[in-house]
Amino acid sequence: VDSARFAYSGLERIFHERGRLAVCISLIASEGGMRFAELQEACALTDGNLSRHLHALTEVSVVTLARERHGTRMATVVRITPQGRERFLAYLDELEAVVRDARAHSVESIAPPCTLSPAKAT
Amino acid sequence: VDSARFAYSGLERIFHERGRLAVCISLIASEGGMRFAELQEACALTDGNLSRHLHALTEVSVVTLARERHGTRMATVVRITPQGRERFLAYLDELEAVVRDARAHSVESIAPPCTLSPAKAT
Repeated sequence: VDSARFAYSGLERIFHERGRLAVCISLIASEGGMRFAELQEACALTDGNLSRHLHALTEVSVVTLARERHGTRMATVVRITPQGRERFLAYLDELEAVVRDARAHSVESIAPPCTLSPAKAT
Repeated sequence: VDSARFAYSGLERIFHERGRLAVCISLIASEGGMRFAELQEACALTDGNLSRHLHALTEVSVVTLARERHGTRMATVVRITPQGRERFLAYLDELEAVVRDARAHSVESIAPPCTLSPAKAT
């Protein structure tokens, strides 16, 4: 119903967490994938935190992990999946709506509001 | 440092939760405040959830609660504080930067990426 105008049900919890948001933005910029260490640096996350976020994202098929040769060493390479990308872009649409709503309302409220009778000061 | 380009440290946890985000957007639209029941409807939150969010927001002085006469009955009226408003608008600036970054990168990545040597298919 329209009464719940600020429910934002499209803000999927899997993406709406600062660390995972950072991870997904990093990954949509590089279809070739990113090494664990690169991702950690880009997102300023600890080993443990990045591991936990990647675990959560692989469980819902948003990212994939693969051990691959990188120069002379092996590295864990993280990629966003096509379906993960699509879901993340839908999440971004909702995030954009949030910012737009908020901006519109913070301007509206410069006009004197009068939804409630004023509180008695005495 | 600039290496953590996706850290988004301005995404304050107090605002970056779907329910609290909805509450704050609702409140910046009405400086006269909103009754608990109105807020609950606008944000599609249960009694318990809204109470918990309001408790968290009052603890950091982002909102205030007051019992006030509304017609013939008393109601709890919720208002965003001037400092809460200022912090929330700063949070929105960061959220806008997130959306902007993500959009820029999802376009960038249409061009063939080449940060890693391709994985061997065999």
